[in-house]
Amino acid sequence: MFLTRTEYDRGVNTFSPEGRLFQVEYAIEAIKLGSTAIGVKTKEGVVLAVEKRITSPLLEPSSVEKIMEIDDHIGCAMSGLIADARTLVEHARVETQNHRFSYGEPMTVESTTQALCDLALRFGEGDEESMSRPFGVSLLIAGHDENGPSLYYTDPSGTFWQCNAKAIGSGSEGADSSLQEQFNKDLSLAEAETIAVSILKQVMEEKVTPNNVDIAKVAPAYHIYTPQEVEAVISRL
Amino acid sequence: MFLTRTEYDRGVNTFSPEGRLFQVEYAIEAIKLGSTAIGVKTKEGVVLAVEKRITSPLLEPSSVEKIMEIDDHIGCAMSGLIADARTLVEHARVETQNHRFSYGEPMTVESTTQALCDLALRFGEGDEESMSRPFGVSLLIAGHDENGPSLYYTDPSGTFWQCNAKAIGSGSEGADSSLQEQFNKDLSLAEAETIAVSILKQVMEEKVTPNNVDIAKVAPAYHIYTPQEVEAVISRL
Amino acid sequence: MFLTRTEYDRGVNTFSPEGRLFQVEYAIEAIKLGSTAIGVKTKEGVVLAVEKRITSPLLEPSSVEKIMEIDDHIGCAMSGLIADARTLVEHARVETQNHRFSYGEPMTVESTTQALCDLALRFGEGDEESMSRPFGVSLLIAGHDENGPSLYYTDPSGTFWQCNAKAIGSGSEGADSSLQEQFNKDLSLAEAETIAVSILKQVMEEKVTPNNVDIAKVAPAYHIYTPQEVEAVISRL
Amino acid sequence: MFLTRTEYDRGVNTFSPEGRLFQVEYAIEAIKLGSTAIGVKTKEGVVLAVEKRITSPLLEPSSVEKIMEIDDHIGCAMSGLIADARTLVEHARVETQNHRFSYGEPMTVESTTQALCDLALRFGEGDEESMSRPFGVSLLIAGHDENGPSLYYTDPSGTFWQCNAKAIGSGSEGADSSLQEQFNKDLSLAEAETIAVSILKQVMEEKVTPNNVDIAKVAPAYHIYTPQEVEAVISRL
Amino acid sequence: MFLTRTEYDRGVNTFSPEGRLFQVEYAIEAIKLGSTAIGVKTKEGVVLAVEKRITSPLLEPSSVEKIMEIDDHIGCAMSGLIADARTLVEHARVETQNHRFSYGEPMTVESTTQALCDLALRFGEGDEESMSRPFGVSLLIAGHDENGPSLYYTDPSGTFWQCNAKAIGSGSEGADSSLQEQFNKDLSLAEAETIAVSILKQVMEEKVTPNNVDIAKVAPAYHIYTPQEVEAVISRL
Amino acid sequence: MFLTRTEYDRGVNTFSPEGRLFQVEYAIEAIKLGSTAIGVKTKEGVVLAVEKRITSPLLEPSSVEKIMEIDDHIGCAMSGLIADARTLVEHARVETQNHRFSYGEPMTVESTTQALCDLALRFGEGDEESMSRPFGVSLLIAGHDENGPSLYYTDPSGTFWQCNAKAIGSGSEGADSSLQEQFNKDLSLAEAETIAVSILKQVMEEKVTPNNVDIAKVAPAYHIYTPQEVEAVISRL
Amino acid sequence: MFLTRTEYDRGVNTFSPEGRLFQVEYAIEAIKLGSTAIGVKTKEGVVLAVEKRITSPLLEPSSVEKIMEIDDHIGCAMSGLIADARTLVEHARVETQNHRFSYGEPMTVESTTQALCDLALRFGEGDEESMSRPFGVSLLIAGHDENGPSLYYTDPSGTFWQCNAKAIGSGSEGADSSLQEQFNKDLSLAEAETIAVSILKQVMEEKVTPNNVDIAKVAPAYHIYTPQEVEAVISRL
Repeated sequence: MFLTRTEYDRGVNTFSPEGRLFQVEYAIEAIKLGSTAIGVKTKEGVVLAVEKRITSPLLEPSSVEKIMEIDDHIGCAMSGLIADARTLVEHARVETQNHRFSYGEPMTVESTTQALCDLALRFGEGDEESMSRPFGVSLLIAGHDENGPSLYYTDPSGTFWQCNAKAIGSGSEGADSSLQEQFNKDLSLAEAETIAVSILKQVMEEKVTPNNVDIAKVAPAYHIYTPQEVEAVISRL
Repeated sequence: MFLTRTEYDRGVNTFSPEGRLFQVEYAIEAIKLGSTAIGVKTKEGVVLAVEKRITSPLLEPSSVEKIMEIDDHIGCAMSGLIADARTLVEHARVETQNHRFSYGEPMTVESTTQALCDLALRFGEGDEESMSRPFGVSLLIAGHDENGPSLYYTDPSGTFWQCNAKAIGSGSEGADSSLQEQFNKDLSLAEAETIAVSILKQVMEEKVTPNNVDIAKVAPAYHIYTPQEVEAVISRL
Repeated sequence: MFLTRTEYDRGVNTFSPEGRLFQVEYAIEAIKLGSTAIGVKTKEGVVLAVEKRITSPLLEPSSVEKIMEIDDHIGCAMSGLIADARTLVEHARVETQNHRFSYGEPMTVESTTQALCDLALRFGEGDEESMSRPFGVSLLIAGHDENGPSLYYTDPSGTFWQCNAKAIGSGSEGADSSLQEQFNKDLSLAEAETIAVSILKQVMEEKVTPNNVDIAKVAPAYHIYTPQEVEAVISRL
Repeated sequence: MFLTRTEYDRGVNTFSPEGRLFQVEYAIEAIKLGSTAIGVKTKEGVVLAVEKRITSPLLEPSSVEKIMEIDDHIGCAMSGLIADARTLVEHARVETQNHRFSYGEPMTVESTTQALCDLALRFGEGDEESMSRPFGVSLLIAGHDENGPSLYYTDPSGTFWQCNAKAIGSGSEGADSSLQEQFNKDLSLAEAETIAVSILKQVMEEKVTPNNVDIAKVAPAYHIYTPQEVEAVISRL
Repeated sequence: MFLTRTEYDRGVNTFSPEGRLFQVEYAIEAIKLGSTAIGVKTKEGVVLAVEKRITSPLLEPSSVEKIMEIDDHIGCAMSGLIADARTLVEHARVETQNHRFSYGEPMTVESTTQALCDLALRFGEGDEESMSRPFGVSLLIAGHDENGPSLYYTDPSGTFWQCNAKAIGSGSEGADSSLQEQFNKDLSLAEAETIAVSILKQVMEEKVTPNNVDIAKVAPAYHIYTPQEVEAVISRL
Repeated sequence: MFLTRTEYDRGVNTFSPEGRLFQVEYAIEAIKLGSTAIGVKTKEGVVLAVEKRITSPLLEPSSVEKIMEIDDHIGCAMSGLIADARTLVEHARVETQNHRFSYGEPMTVESTTQALCDLALRFGEGDEESMSRPFGVSLLIAGHDENGPSLYYTDPSGTFWQCNAKAIGSGSEGADSSLQEQFNKDLSLAEAETIAVSILKQVMEEKVTPNNVDIAKVAPAYHIYTPQEVEAVISRL
Repeated sequence: MFLTRTEYDRGVNTFSPEGRLFQVEYAIEAIKLGSTAIGVKTKEGVVLAVEKRITSPLLEPSSVEKIMEIDDHIGCAMSGLIADARTLVEHARVETQNHRFSYGEPMTVESTTQALCDLALRFGEGDEESMSRPFGVSLLIAGHDENGPSLYYTDPSGTFWQCNAKAIGSGSEGADSSLQEQFNKDLSLAEAETIAVSILKQVMEEKVTPNNVDIAKVAPAYHIYTPQEVEAVISRL
């Protein structure tokens, strides 16, 4: 009596008989095609590490940005459609700046994440800023505020979770298993760096170099590693 | 002469020949996929208890919020799409704050519930705040006002009912039966806690721990239990 | 040469070749699924009686509202989608309050009914307040104004009729026959109460109790019966 | 090479290859399902007579309004969807009142008819007041102005004609033939009353009574007949 | 590789692979169903003559208006959907009045025609005044301005041409041939009257009478002929 | 795996899998049905010549305008849907007038062409002035500004090119070949006239006369030739 | 269970089950039909070189603009739909002018590129400036700012990358390979000119001449080469 799923999956925001939203699920597929990103939270701060796919030797590696600063105390790694991610990050930057201006203090990491997800949830609504389809991107949002370090994971449905460690992108399944084995709450920041990059190494097909990996930390301020600093982490593996 | 139901179920807000609104019914299916939540009303106040599905050991259990505060005197438990629930709760928070500001007194629990349902009913209307599909979430709204404690249950059609006790989510059928057997109007708040958590325990596949269960009460103020308080309830089972 | 009806019934506001509006007819079907409501007009005033379906013993019977006050001198009983009815009643309340404020006198029952039907007629128009589908509800509007008591019946097409007595909902067919047999213009209000409740009793599958029946009168002010008053009527059967 | 008509008839305002507008033609079908109404123009004034279908003995016959006043000097009889007719009449009432207010004199019957038809023509345009489908109603507009008595006939396409006599609704075909036989320009108003009601009697399945027939005249002011006046006309047959 | 034309003809404003706009072509078909109208230009002025289809002896022939005044110096004859024509004429009347008010002089016939066609062209644009489909009407616009007499012909695509003589409507093909044979630039106005009516007579199925033919001239002012004047022309045939 | 082209060609502004925009290509087909127009640029100025299709001897040849003035120093010839061309020309006239008013100098020919193409490009956008389909017209825009004479060619996609000589319309293929043979940069204006009209003569099926050919030049001011001037050019062939 | 890709590729902004956006991919196909453009970055500045397809000897080669200035310090080469590129370039010109006006300094090359891509990303959103389909164009943006010379590459998805050298258009595959072989970071600007034009020569079917190749540099100001300068580069091959 029901149609097959194919009949329900083209309405951008329509439930199937089983209560599913297929366009959101397909956007999640878009992320499975993306490069792998990993976040690890420690007591000292949060580490983000991403694979950069340099499809041509003529590409400027530094321009393939998969980790971006949102505010002094918040950064994020992304997997999926980069142009979509830029829109979300730009939105978050405006929100955090407005918050600083209005209240004289930094926005909390959770509020920033919520603001991002509010925008992501409203696809198909015809608003000024919203998209006509789900945002095809997942984010790992690393921050440090009055509650200490925190790591959030968002998906295209506009849902978010707080995590101790999390991998997204094409290698996320294997990377998540490795994270569960290797993570513990007493990791030092340096250990977290090593774990993140060593797991990236497992899921990447190429040799890990400062050219195809980016690392950042929020501890407590956002800092993106220089090629030398990345090299130093790699040399520790 | 009629088409099968499949032809009518994709218009977001269209009647089928039997007078049914399928998109609303499918949204109700989304809730049947959700985690179980239980509410029990006593003369002393209302207890809410929810199952939290911690899909990975790396998730921060406290960030899986299935019970939220709306105002000092109102809280709610949810089952279904969490991002949708957050939109409804945020709407209710604004409404209750506006009410306090305009009238100098708290909004009644029924008015708050009505405000939530007005928003839920208007899906597909192209309004500023409304969604282009039904909200895929049910809420148990617990509150305490001049009429004493009250418990409301809302569904995606924008309808609400006042209840003495109610379960929603994937385990709701069995839990509702148990509630009918065990509920009586003279329960103490502590007895209600025990009943709610013991029924949750029946419908959950895992051992009940402070990590995968949240409890809150409105008696008469909203209070979400600390892990210690949850542990204390579990230990009474 | 014509298509079967199935091709015409999904456009929300499109004529079929025979000049029919199927979405309105399907909304009328939604009402046939609803609980039964009965109105009886007498010289002393109008009586409304409704069946309340209490699907769970844990539901608060008083929160299943099928009779609502519109203004001091107007009340209504409903059958069909309750959330839709609430929107119509809320609209009528605003209209009657505005009328009192602007003209310093109560709105007539007919004008109030017309205002409700204007809103119901405009489904699919994209207006601020209108719905994108027909309202799936019928109302029995009881009132008392300078012309004495009156009873109106509205359907989802936005049409209304004045009646001496009328039943709506799943049991309306049998109830209407009984009303035709038992109604006469010289009924007292007490006799009307007895007739309304005894006919409800015939069409309900359960025993009639103050829990599953509501009664109200407009004579000349709106009054909803207390459980004791309902019990008194039942005891007269 | 052409599709059958069925492919063209669901666009609300689209031409078929033969240059036809099917939604308008289907709306005209809606009128053929309606009750019969008759208008007859004489030198003394215009008579309108309509069949009222009283589907239940509990309906208040006076609330089944098929003849309505537009202004002191204009009235109309209708056949088809009554809720649609009410919208048109309400629009005409506002127009005639505005005209009186702006120019200090009554609106002519033709201008009033034109104003009605302008609204009817604009279906599907997304305007404030227009409908998303054709109005499913025909009107006989009787009036008296500086040009003397006049009778207009409108159809759902927004077209109008001036007539000496005209029948609309389910019995219009037979009634029009009878009118052509019996009409002449020297009829008195009383003769016109007799002709109109005697023709109604032919097309109605029931006995003609003041309960199921309404009569009105504009001669030169609008007057709807009391049951006694209707009875008097019937007794003359 | 191309679809048959049927796939392209329902989009109101879409090109077919051959570069055709079918909805406009279908609107032109609507005109071929209309009554015949003829215009003839002479040095003394322009004559318009139209067939009136009086479908019932009870219709007031004078209310079947197929020739209308736009301004003192401009009139038009029409064929197709009369309600559409009225909208265009009303638009032109406002334009010419505005022009007189703003510039203190009459609008030229060409500017008036252009204004009409601008409105006709913009169907499907969602503007305030435009239609959601092409206007199903052709006009013959006769006028007299500083350039002397002129005759314009417009079609549903919003295109117009200046002509010496032109026929539109169901009999246009035969009438156009006759006009080409009989027209010369030195016709007197009286000769033009005779030619126009004699050609109408050929294409009409009935006897020509003042009841079923209307004549108007712009020479240099608009004048619609009285039944006596029409009779006089007919008697000259 | 791809659909045939037929599935992609009805969306007004959608890419096919090969990256094509079919509605634009179909609009270009509309132009291939149009009459031929030719432009030739010389150092002395630009010549435009067009074929006029006089479908009936009763049409006023001067009213078939295929060459229009945009400003003192710019004119254009057109092929395709004339009503569409009029909208573009009217838009350009307003732009050039605004430019003169704002800057006290004439708009350059390229800016004028760009303004026209901006409007043409935006079809399907729902703007105030834009169309819901591509403009079905090509223009040859001849002008003279501070850079000397110039000739632009525009197509329905909103693209434009500067040319030395160009033909558009049904005879463009043959005419373009002839132009390539006969054009050289040292042509005098008189030679350009002769070439343009002699090529028109080849592609037209009828004898060339002042009635079915229009000529204009911009040298440096726009001038449309009188019948005598056209006759003079023809006599030189 | 999935449909073939053909069912998903017509929604302008809808994900397929694999998470792909087909309209964007088809727009990328449009670019593969375009002429080839090449950019090479050196320490001295950036060189852009494009193939110009002169489809007719009568086209003015200088009017086939495939390289355009955005600001004094930024230029861009394009491949794909030229009318789309003009809209993007015009947008960027306004943005860079506004920036200069507001901040008194030139906009950085990356900000300019981001502004272009923001517009490109928002297709299908119904905004004022956005398109209803993806922009069918790729750009090579060459600039020089406080960070020295830079070269960006944008695609229809609104994504951009920084490159050392890049080819776009129909010959891009072969040209990219050649660039990878010949590029090194120590190229002089003259060497870059030679490489760019020699690679263009390989992918073009015709002999390279100043007529069918354009060259520009940003070093540090934008300069488009005169035919003599182009000739000089060609003669060095």
